[in-house]
Amino acid sequence: MKMAVSVLLLATSALRGAEAPPGPLSDASRRSIETARDAALKGTGAAGLVRSLSDEVGARLAGSAGDRAAVDWAVRKLKEIGLENVHSEKVTVHHWERGEESGEVTAPVVQKLVLTALGNGVGTPTEGLEAEVLRVGSIVDLKALLEKSPEAARGKIVYFGQKMERLRAGKGYGDAVPIRVAGATEAARGGAVGVLIRSVGTNTSRVPHTGVLLYDDKLPKIPAAALSPPDADLLDRLSAGPGPLRVRFRLGCQWKPDEESANVIGEVRGSSRPEEIVLLGAHLDSWDLGTGALDDAAGVGIVSEAARRIAKLPRRPARTLRVVLFANEENGSAGSRGYEEAHKSELSRHVAATELDLGTDPVWQFDTLAGPEAEAAATQLAALLSPLGISRSATGYAGADIDLLRVAGVPLFGLHQDASRYFDYHHTADDTFDKIDPGGLDRCVAATLTFALYAAEVPGGFGRLPEALRKTEK
Amino acid sequence: MKMAVSVLLLATSALRGAEAPPGPLSDASRRSIETARDAALKGTGAAGLVRSLSDEVGARLAGSAGDRAAVDWAVRKLKEIGLENVHSEKVTVHHWERGEESGEVTAPVVQKLVLTALGNGVGTPTEGLEAEVLRVGSIVDLKALLEKSPEAARGKIVYFGQKMERLRAGKGYGDAVPIRVAGATEAARGGAVGVLIRSVGTNTSRVPHTGVLLYDDKLPKIPAAALSPPDADLLDRLSAGPGPLRVRFRLGCQWKPDEESANVIGEVRGSSRPEEIVLLGAHLDSWDLGTGALDDAAGVGIVSEAARRIAKLPRRPARTLRVVLFANEENGSAGSRGYEEAHKSELSRHVAATELDLGTDPVWQFDTLAGPEAEAAATQLAALLSPLGISRSATGYAGADIDLLRVAGVPLFGLHQDASRYFDYHHTADDTFDKIDPGGLDRCVAATLTFALYAAEVPGGFGRLPEALRKTEK
Repeated sequence: MKMAVSVLLLATSALRGAEAPPGPLSDASRRSIETARDAALKGTGAAGLVRSLSDEVGARLAGSAGDRAAVDWAVRKLKEIGLENVHSEKVTVHHWERGEESGEVTAPVVQKLVLTALGNGVGTPTEGLEAEVLRVGSIVDLKALLEKSPEAARGKIVYFGQKMERLRAGKGYGDAVPIRVAGATEAARGGAVGVLIRSVGTNTSRVPHTGVLLYDDKLPKIPAAALSPPDADLLDRLSAGPGPLRVRFRLGCQWKPDEESANVIGEVRGSSRPEEIVLLGAHLDSWDLGTGALDDAAGVGIVSEAARRIAKLPRRPARTLRVVLFANEENGSAGSRGYEEAHKSELSRHVAATELDLGTDPVWQFDTLAGPEAEAAATQLAALLSPLGISRSATGYAGADIDLLRVAGVPLFGLHQDASRYFDYHHTADDTFDKIDPGGLDRCVAATLTFALYAAEVPGGFGRLPEALRKTEK
Repeated sequence: MKMAVSVLLLATSALRGAEAPPGPLSDASRRSIETARDAALKGTGAAGLVRSLSDEVGARLAGSAGDRAAVDWAVRKLKEIGLENVHSEKVTVHHWERGEESGEVTAPVVQKLVLTALGNGVGTPTEGLEAEVLRVGSIVDLKALLEKSPEAARGKIVYFGQKMERLRAGKGYGDAVPIRVAGATEAARGGAVGVLIRSVGTNTSRVPHTGVLLYDDKLPKIPAAALSPPDADLLDRLSAGPGPLRVRFRLGCQWKPDEESANVIGEVRGSSRPEEIVLLGAHLDSWDLGTGALDDAAGVGIVSEAARRIAKLPRRPARTLRVVLFANEENGSAGSRGYEEAHKSELSRHVAATELDLGTDPVWQFDTLAGPEAEAAATQLAALLSPLGISRSATGYAGADIDLLRVAGVPLFGLHQDASRYFDYHHTADDTFDKIDPGGLDRCVAATLTFALYAAEVPGGFGRLPEALRKTEK
């Protein structure tokens, strides 16, 4: 039924798009956006939503019981806050389970190690994996070493010691994350039997960071774990000493049968162009170690609350706002792919998309991934965001779940939150509600709502992505 | 042999004490202390000692294998750095072992809890202890509640939610620690079956703080654990909600047979009054969760390095400096009692004592627990400490291991370190070497060495404690 209506509207929409070129908004519309934006700064319900998801559902790794509970929670909650067309759309997810994990230095001294398995990794034998440690810095360092000494890693546990830099932008993470994603593959290529990495994070506590790794099917899949920063420091000190450094670790992680999960969707239907869609994304799943308060109950709370406030405005915006809470962002992206497949016929009518997935702190940068014809509108939108302390950037990144929409030419917008503190907690047991700053969330709601109202109203939208930008990052 | 010599010297010393009243030091002596003090600020070997103990021995709870390794380490190390009369003095210690521990909220939601058993506590049945939670703030709050409703705690798990304040002085700890020490006793008095406390600490990470509890032998001994701060926050939020809050936890802790441990002693023998002793204390044992870098490898490093530097000075001080690394400070004080018993005949010749047991940050306060006749000397000593940014305070506390020396009238001196950061790590898995600040340790060495040289040289010493102060705090 939805599809049939969609097809009818598609023609109308395409026509309208051609009739009205992208362009700035009227002064009256601009003023009503400013009013809604400033009202959000006085306090929103975002923290309440985050608390409900993180305290009442908690951890929700794809395929787990928590994941199913989260889908039920989201359907119930989006209805409760007054969104329309609330429904779930099934996706099949792989189901990885962590199990027990432990480790220790066995020589030249005996010391316990606090570590956690990297997501989607294989387990060790029950008695553990023990070997001599080869310390390298980065992937580049390992490759350079293997170039010179091809047997240097054979039979060893390769330990990647690269440190992540604390930055306001996500670049620190981008620089360090290759050791997590590709470390096991590159070590296996050199004949290693296991991998340890310094956690990709900025904390100094005995709390390790998980996150996905990718194996190369042509190489042996070797167990891989992240050490807490103090444990990485210990290996740094011990590996600088005389005599071989040996480590043993046990990972009980394993794959279980595939499970059903779902994207959860709710809308504020447009008043005059309901067939045109502005997508507000966040992800519903989380890692298993914490309660996913920052990653990404925060994003769920921000986009849901922004939509709730817009639904209550005296006048509905022209286009439809669609909240999409994606499944399985953390370790498989089945939700992102599922959405793209299920909504293929609609994607040409996705006028703009954004995604909130960087915790609780305020948005400070606004990023546009759009063609030159969007520039006038993007400039006006940036001016509306500027009183929130948001400047324009040009990293060209918007979000993991909406990245696939690039292929269909959907303009993407990044509302980048301050990441300075985020990687203290990201993917750890410390991702819990006490880290949430309600005031920071309110500012994010104000930014998201400003973006959403603008995109839902701007005549002609933002055009389409140029061909050169229609490639995903993956 | 040692005892026989001691007895002979005792008479001489008492005579000398009467001959020379306490009084200030000569200008020449003062200047040589200043030179030694300022040299320490340029860098010392303290961090190297701390690293060696925390990395190479690691956790060393009384009675454990680590504890025995620490005694061997200390004897070897004090010899290595050139102290004299290095030896260990056996003490028998109770041996408590932690075992496995876990917990979760079971209603109204299911959430994992990160917790750790309180030291010397009893375990739970293997399947765990489950009950409804009664939240109170402090011990005072519980007592007030039981006064009004004597059955309020019966059959329940009492959760103490009191928060510790972050302060430069130790007062924040003193205010909050009763929930840990006395919580289980007071809850048992009200018929509770178990106790949870908010960790006595200032961190915000998912890392709980252990520490001893005391049971009352006339009451049931009930299991007790500390929650990490985020988990305490969770219970705070959930206990404010509707419906009963239930928790289950499992503690595998138990008593093992008593073991032998030892105080380790090393000296810089005095040049002219070797029978008179200035005691520099720290404790060798640690909790089992971290590597005891701050608590108290730091103190071990500071007092040992201060003694090492004094041993290398061109001229030995008049009195003997005695480094005492106490056993079992954390959960039994067998080392403190053992020292007092073994050295009873010498205590009248203990001219002064201090103890370093507050981590890595600089000394900022100097405390004297002495009689009025010590005032002139204490004032001159305070002036020597003042260039290190140390002011005089009057808390009257010097250290847990030397407190017993009060009974014998020994004047005690507190070199209080800045405690602002210390309780982020104290008694946790996060007490590891990466938290050590070598520069902070150097400043502590400078302060300790200044105290030690002054006390070893000052004519007539500091007199004896007045009767009113000859009571221990325990």
